Parts: sequence; structure tokens; C-alpha cells
Amino acid sequence: MSEPAVKLIGCFASPFVHRAEVALRLKGVPYELIEEDLSNKSDFLLKHNPVHQKVPVLLHGDRPAICESLVIVEYVDEVFDGQQLLPSEPLARAAARFWATFVDKQFRESWIAMFSSDGEAQVVAARDVKANLTLIEGQLPEGKRFFGGDSVGYLDIVLGGIAHWMEMFEEIAGVPLLAEEEHPALCRWARAYTADEIVRQCLPDRDRLLAALTPKRDTFVSIAKAMATQK
Amino acid sequence: MSEPAVKLIGCFASPFVHRAEVALRLKGVPYELIEEDLSNKSDFLLKHNPVHQKVPVLLHGDRPAICESLVIVEYVDEVFDGQQLLPSEPLARAAARFWATFVDKQFRESWIAMFSSDGEAQVVAARDVKANLTLIEGQLPEGKRFFGGDSVGYLDIVLGGIAHWMEMFEEIAGVPLLAEEEHPALCRWARAYTADEIVRQCLPDRDRLLAALTPKRDTFVSIAKAMATQK
Repeated sequence: MSEPAVKLIGCFASPFVHRAEVALRLKGVPYELIEEDLSNKSDFLLKHNPVHQKVPVLLHGDRPAICESLVIVEYVDEVFDGQQLLPSEPLARAAARFWATFVDKQFRESWIAMFSSDGEAQVVAARDVKANLTLIEGQLPEGKRFFGGDSVGYLDIVLGGIAHWMEMFEEIAGVPLLAEEEHPALCRWARAYTADEIVRQCLPDRDRLLAALTPKRDTFVSIAKAMATQK
Repeated sequence: MSEPAVKLIGCFASPFVHRAEVALRLKGVPYELIEEDLSNKSDFLLKHNPVHQKVPVLLHGDRPAICESLVIVEYVDEVFDGQQLLPSEPLARAAARFWATFVDKQFRESWIAMFSSDGEAQVVAARDVKANLTLIEGQLPEGKRFFGGDSVGYLDIVLGGIAHWMEMFEEIAGVPLLAEEEHPALCRWARAYTADEIVRQCLPDRDRLLAALTPKRDTFVSIAKAMATQK
């Protein structure tokens, strides 16, 4: 019996879709990437992710869709053979999940505050982002190339946005964040991660990414200003 | 060899601590509850959860502490024998994790908006809370008492705040949310959940809870007003 087909609804420029893609490729699972235009969402996306209407969405045969990038990565790890993505030891699994939640909550909030502000507010927010990067860097196991140890694992995948997307955001916002002198180990990790043979296949082209992300700066700033003046 | 001791740093009135307690009790794991005064945080808490300085924190022997309620529940499920908390089937596990994330993100945001506002803004926010409750209700398996099926499972534990805390918040904010006519299945579930023999041991007394939560309303409203007038 052949394996049910795997489809991934994604879009160029999303570090969340990147997570799902790397997970599938590390497991050696062939998949069809269905490109979604988020400015004009398809009925297909709305049908499979009616709650959030976001990518990525994983379709495994005719089973119900799986949404949320962290949930997808755990699902992929559980159902497909091949390299294990989460650590096997429960305490290490708990630590990986804790830091994944940290990235998607505390780190993300600080990053949004930085990317949606300017002037003094941006300086303060950038300080928070850097402090969070320091906390993340502290989780790199001593003497290892990856958060997963000797090879790319769950937390490396989760942090993909920091490895590849971050420098584009720094350039657009005009704020340096991940710098060699402050975060040498994290910079070393980012180079190792983006140089990985599998990961490289899931990294959007730098120039195209920069062009796609640049307009988002104005949108973020406008939304933040509108929210700040709301009663 | 005896099992390493389990300690839980918690505090009265927290639905997040409730999650960890129910998980431990369902597994039949004896634990010592260390009550934390969140208005005057102990060095013990700061040492074991330096990142968030929040409860719950699980200490299992002399291993590093485990923080974040959802992470704790998964850890407890993985290391201790007894009743399985997450479903065993990967697709059902993914769905349970998706809805847990929904509760802690989308539902929580709508709830905070309701609890920190008044007037027309509160009416709008209450509508969002109710819509989210409808989505959650839709996940109750047909003909089953619990989200976990015939017995309390992972998602039931995650939703404990809705089962027991919600009515206190409704009373304090003066806004009905979970009503029999709108959410009959969810109300039925809340009664079954809070009547469960194990769960009942982890439910704070209604009157004490109401007294503890009442002052929070003013704090929430003040913070929201301060944020709304910030530049």
C-alpha cells in the first residue's frame, strides 16, 4: 500500500512554513507545496484552516488538516520514520518545548515591538530582542553545533526565522540585532544551520525575501500607531 | 530505588497550576505543593523559573525545573505510568495540541479584552469570547462526556479554567459568557469535569476564589487604559 500523499499549504517568505518544510525534508517525506496568496486567500486555505486562515497547513492523505507550525512539526516527528526531531529524553523534550513557546511568545512580542516602532521606543524594544537572543543562545549545548546536538533538531527548526529572516528585518528596520560580538555562539549556529544541506533547500532567496518583507515595515508601524491611539 | 520526589510551585487561584495538579493526580503521582506569594516572589521561584518568574513550576527530583503548564502536562504524561493524558493517535494528539494553543492564545486574548474593558468595548469583546467558546464546544466528541472521550484527558485539563474559573470572572465583570442556551454541550462538559473525583481535589473554593479574583478586575482595566493612551 502506498503512503498517503502529503501536501503543504504554504507561502514564500514565511518562517513558519519553513519549519514544516524542514521537518518533512529531514524525515525524507516527499510533499507537494501549494503556494497560497495571503493577500487573496483561497477557498482551499479557508476550508482547511477555518480558525486561523493562516499557513502552514499540512494535509496527510484525506485526514483532517493539521495547522500551527509547532503542532505540524510534532506530528511529522510522530508519524514518519527517519531522524528524530524532538529529543528522546522527556526532560530534554520539555526544555525544547519550553523554548519553542518562548520563541513564539516572548521573543515574537519583543520582535514585533521592535519592527513596529521607531525612535526611542525602537531602541528599547531592540534591547529586549537582544536580551531574548542572549537567553536563546544560552540553550546551545556546550561544544555542539546545533540546539539538537550534532544535527538539526526541533529547536533548530523553530529558530529558523532567527537564522535566516532576522538579517532582512534588521536591514529593513535599520536596527542591528544579532551581532557577532554580542552573540558569537548564536551567529555560529545561524551559519551552521543555514549551511545545512537539507535546510538550504527550504530557505527563500535573500533578495526576493527582502523585497517581499520591506513593505511589511510600514504596515506594522501603521497598525501599532492605530492601536496606540485607540481608546 | 524510590522515585524522586515531585514538587510543584503553585499558587491558589491559578487555572495554570490546576492543569499541573490534575495531570499529576490523574497519574497518581504524590507531590508537594509549594505555595508561592506572587505579590512577593520567592528566591526559590526566581531560581527555578528565571525567564518568566511564574507558576506552575514542576521539580522532579534534582532535575532542572520544568515551566509552562502545557509543557508540564506533556512531561508528566511522558514520564509517569498510569492513565494516558494525550490521545495515543498522532492526528488526535495534533488536534489536542492545536486546541490547547488556541485556548492559550486566541481564547485568552479575547478573554483579557473582555475582562479589561467596559461599555461598548466589553460588549464586542464578550462576543469574541462567546464565538471562541462555540469553536471549543465544537471539538467535544459526539456522545462523549469529555474532550478526552470517556475520561478526563489533556484538553479537558487545559480547559479547566473555563469549567471552574469562568463563572467567577463573569460575576466580577458583570458579563454572562458560558450560557446553557448558547453552549449546552460545553455547560454539560463543565459540570462533568468539575464533578470528576480527581478534578474536584484541584478546584479552589468558589468564595475564596471570588475574593481573590475580584481585585484583579481593576488592575486589568487600569493596565488596558494605560496601554491605550501610550504613544
